[in-house]
Amino acid sequence: MTASDDDLAAGGGLLHRRTLLRGGVLAGGLGAAFAARAADGIGEGSPETMRVPGAPFSGYGVPAHWRGDIKRSIGAVPDRPGTGASRTPLERLEGTITPAGLHYERHHNGIPDIDPAAHTLIVHGLVKQPLVFSLDALLRYPMHSRAAFVECAGNSGGMIAPQPAQTTAGGLHGLVSCSEWTGVPLSLLLDEAGVDPRATWLLAEGGDAAGMSRSVPLWKCRDDAMIALYQNGEPIRPEQGFPMRLLLPGFQGNMNVKWLRRLKLTVGPTFTKDETSRYTELMPDGKAREFMVEMGVKSVITRPSFGLNMQGPGLYEISGLAWSGAGKIAKVEVSADGGKSWAQAALNGPVQDKALTRFRLPWRWQGAPSLLLSRATDEHGNVQPKRADWLAQYAPGQAYQFNAIAAWQVEAGGGIKHAYA
Amino acid sequence: MTASDDDLAAGGGLLHRRTLLRGGVLAGGLGAAFAARAADGIGEGSPETMRVPGAPFSGYGVPAHWRGDIKRSIGAVPDRPGTGASRTPLERLEGTITPAGLHYERHHNGIPDIDPAAHTLIVHGLVKQPLVFSLDALLRYPMHSRAAFVECAGNSGGMIAPQPAQTTAGGLHGLVSCSEWTGVPLSLLLDEAGVDPRATWLLAEGGDAAGMSRSVPLWKCRDDAMIALYQNGEPIRPEQGFPMRLLLPGFQGNMNVKWLRRLKLTVGPTFTKDETSRYTELMPDGKAREFMVEMGVKSVITRPSFGLNMQGPGLYEISGLAWSGAGKIAKVEVSADGGKSWAQAALNGPVQDKALTRFRLPWRWQGAPSLLLSRATDEHGNVQPKRADWLAQYAPGQAYQFNAIAAWQVEAGGGIKHAYA
Repeated sequence: MTASDDDLAAGGGLLHRRTLLRGGVLAGGLGAAFAARAADGIGEGSPETMRVPGAPFSGYGVPAHWRGDIKRSIGAVPDRPGTGASRTPLERLEGTITPAGLHYERHHNGIPDIDPAAHTLIVHGLVKQPLVFSLDALLRYPMHSRAAFVECAGNSGGMIAPQPAQTTAGGLHGLVSCSEWTGVPLSLLLDEAGVDPRATWLLAEGGDAAGMSRSVPLWKCRDDAMIALYQNGEPIRPEQGFPMRLLLPGFQGNMNVKWLRRLKLTVGPTFTKDETSRYTELMPDGKAREFMVEMGVKSVITRPSFGLNMQGPGLYEISGLAWSGAGKIAKVEVSADGGKSWAQAALNGPVQDKALTRFRLPWRWQGAPSLLLSRATDEHGNVQPKRADWLAQYAPGQAYQFNAIAAWQVEAGGGIKHAYA
Repeated sequence: MTASDDDLAAGGGLLHRRTLLRGGVLAGGLGAAFAARAADGIGEGSPETMRVPGAPFSGYGVPAHWRGDIKRSIGAVPDRPGTGASRTPLERLEGTITPAGLHYERHHNGIPDIDPAAHTLIVHGLVKQPLVFSLDALLRYPMHSRAAFVECAGNSGGMIAPQPAQTTAGGLHGLVSCSEWTGVPLSLLLDEAGVDPRATWLLAEGGDAAGMSRSVPLWKCRDDAMIALYQNGEPIRPEQGFPMRLLLPGFQGNMNVKWLRRLKLTVGPTFTKDETSRYTELMPDGKAREFMVEMGVKSVITRPSFGLNMQGPGLYEISGLAWSGAGKIAKVEVSADGGKSWAQAALNGPVQDKALTRFRLPWRWQGAPSLLLSRATDEHGNVQPKRADWLAQYAPGQAYQFNAIAAWQVEAGGGIKHAYA
């Protein structure tokens, strides 16, 4: 992997995203004796694993024990083990799908254990005919599969702290995950119940001990909302709402109500505890902004990042995730010199609506201190703001909907720190 | 969900794929008292799960215990617990991604337990410079993420039996799965080693006790082959080749060599035990066909299917999977009358190259016996053959590369049997 100066796209060694990398610098050369041994197959020099039968089959597989440290990081309220959040270890993952076992969690009073045969979804309120759906009934409806991220409104909120917290990409930004969801378009169920023309919102309530409930504008319910029954191909996991959740692509995570038990059509918002005591944004004038529910355009570099130190100067790939609650990612720019110059990253397609998008850019790190930033732009022209500009929008201490540019400081020795740009 | 006769697209009640379903037939109506109770939130009539705190967080989540019966079905050789296969329960899944824990397995001598820090990938043979890559070195290379199915050459081979086996979609066709794979394009490593112009194939060898080894044409290695390091976002699972496997999108599963330890560039095929004693097709003239390695165009209806009985006449969605080793799926047609008439199913996008594609079609089952078929066509015009035509290509007993049209017989009482069309 070599690259010439002609391939430079921006300062600090960032290369053009279509740079072809050639020539040997990362691999080791093989001595002649080693190469000869390597050719022997199950013979001298072959690994021990080729001489003993391996492990048998399993009904449901688990990760390699060598990677048992790839886990969600749990932060729960003292004495309330089911209240808090767990975060996806973004820095240990690649691609765009989050394994269901590592999807972030945010529970307000634990994970209910719901018998799917006894569970029902009720559609009532301002409808011509209140209806009740069993899971078996829903399984007969036309379904749709799509990728979608879910992100907690509080994700990256730690970045309002005066000093950058020294923790991982997942620790900072891991309240976002992405799955292939399959379920029944909500519009079908609303049509079946017959929505009263006076209804413009609905109340969605979960069957958990927090009675999680949020008001959702009707236009969203008729647009791309679904009753999600499957996640990454299998029935939705308990932490994600088994046996069913509301999926509102691009909206705050908490509105994607888990363990969904009823939808009540209403004239306006219900102003539930979950949308008044929290999930509102305090503005500089002392008023709280409500129902700003669409997640902003955002990106984070996952590799290199805090905890994944450099292995000496040379070629690396910068890899990260970008997303927007408004639609598709159009562009991600990367800077290695703290924002003085930018190079455009390659987007790993297919780029999907309201889903995580992987971006990649080759980088020749020359061993000097480098401040790495990423800046995403979505198809509507929304661009990630600088941290100072984001902070200026709100009252001090307001941490919801944080989507400013994040940064990693690569030090001369190869260590990586969280930094503010 | 109602539909008029105007929506009929083919015999047996198949509806046009863009039929809008309206009106209540599947949901139950709510009595006034029930509707009133439903409105109470955490009050009278609310479920027990709303009154007690739920379960706490977990580092790595698992499926709901209510769905503990969704497992791979294991078929191993007696006294050799690591030799055989396990199958994906296709009829219990939806969407296109297979959870890693349910990805089919085919092992020839068990799953080796490989220390990733000690594992190396060797590139040698007809190269300018033999090279050895550690996992840490590979993690610095440019990567690519893509969806791809992997299918065993023996998948659906049971369909050569004179009588249709009475088993599930997964039991018949479950040696196919689909993941989002991330890894290093093989072409980069070959360029780095410098391929001798005399080399036109390479030998890929696994580090398992079967020493699984296959010859791969060089054009494929330069096209879309990768050294896969991640599966569905996380490090590749032990059953799928931890810490690395060869991914050859669209080629026979066994060629996607797991636990990959070396690639030897060669003048021609090596004719290993794994490509001569098996994975060849016996032809009617007594000769065996070798290296027909691209999987054919294929489809299977997963719902309704054997084991998922009908719940009485009315509207249903027919849902299934289609794929082709040659590229993208262009069209899937469905018949409910044994092939007399066909309706075109909707393809759930994005339709991706050499990946599973979900197809869907609304169906009004009127309670009569119905023979359900699906027939896929890929972007190159390849069409699934009829079973009789497929069988006529080969010597009796040859079961590899089976891709003929499959069928389910829906009986008047709602039972579903496997059938031949």
